[in-house]
Amino acid sequence: MSVIHTAFVAGLSGGWRILRVDAVVGESLAMAGRLAVAGPGEAQSTATTGVQWRLDGATGHARYATRHELDTLGAVQQGLGRPEARCAALIPIRKNPAWWALAQDERRAILEEQSHHIAIGLEYLPPIARRLYHARELGQPFDFLTWFEYAPEHAEAFEELVARLRRSAEWQFVDREVDIRLVYDEPARQGAAG
Amino acid sequence: MSVIHTAFVAGLSGGWRILRVDAVVGESLAMAGRLAVAGPGEAQSTATTGVQWRLDGATGHARYATRHELDTLGAVQQGLGRPEARCAALIPIRKNPAWWALAQDERRAILEEQSHHIAIGLEYLPPIARRLYHARELGQPFDFLTWFEYAPEHAEAFEELVARLRRSAEWQFVDREVDIRLVYDEPARQGAAG
Repeated sequence: MSVIHTAFVAGLSGGWRILRVDAVVGESLAMAGRLAVAGPGEAQSTATTGVQWRLDGATGHARYATRHELDTLGAVQQGLGRPEARCAALIPIRKNPAWWALAQDERRAILEEQSHHIAIGLEYLPPIARRLYHARELGQPFDFLTWFEYAPEHAEAFEELVARLRRSAEWQFVDREVDIRLVYDEPARQGAAG
Repeated sequence: MSVIHTAFVAGLSGGWRILRVDAVVGESLAMAGRLAVAGPGEAQSTATTGVQWRLDGATGHARYATRHELDTLGAVQQGLGRPEARCAALIPIRKNPAWWALAQDERRAILEEQSHHIAIGLEYLPPIARRLYHARELGQPFDFLTWFEYAPEHAEAFEELVARLRRSAEWQFVDREVDIRLVYDEPARQGAAG
């Protein structure tokens, strides 16, 4: 549960090739050739020439999940960096001021009791691995960055997962969302982001 | 509920005179003469000569409070920067890994149902104003910085408030705490940190 700072740097280098960058809600991000996922200490040494954009986030403790939910997730989830998980998505999201003005019980009720965010994610485990990065406190343009990894045969399941979340009550509070799809095309999978 | 970044800079300048710096749990911070509370954009221009230490934090949304609790707090609390509130305390706290490994429902139960953290703070409103800054995601040495302001006649009530919190179940998870006491001794109260 320690905080791990990670930088997603889009430009000319990095293990992931960017397939597309789509604006879902609000302003998009620039298209770029490749994405580097830089862990603590690596971000500063990342190439600065040709950088299109950089998004920073920090992992941390569970903001909404209960003990029962954490135990259930922990029992089935697998880590990032599986050799077969050569497909990835980076989905940065910003929520509107109305969301952030809600109390904790109100946000939890929308996120899980109404939108089943945690339960839906669980349905797609272990094939669709995910890691959530918090960015709001870092003064970033997005509040969250979610990184997903899956094998090509689970691409359809992944589309279903994101479509279900986007139809939820929680997503009515999303005022900016960009959907970046990537493929790992270097010979050796190095456990990026993980 | 927007995020406001603030820097607490201890050194030779600033509106607040530091009376004492006490380690409550773990390592202390260095004593210094004065403290500057620098809001967004001001932190970079803060004097760098003679700086003993600097702590950064960011305000944000309510992490534990329910709608009922937020409404109750909102009805009675007053802002920082009241002219009569010339006494202040800055209390940086770090919680241990066991705390951060807990689920949201477990942390809420310890913080409020067992320790009455929100209810105790409410008892001392409006005389003892407070603002919580989050620092964990910023890679800071503390997880939280709490800033308190009160008039001299409420100094005894303030001691009671901190003593009650330190006796709570929640405080068993605190593995570093420093208690910094200050007085505003410049002629014009400028609404520091406010």
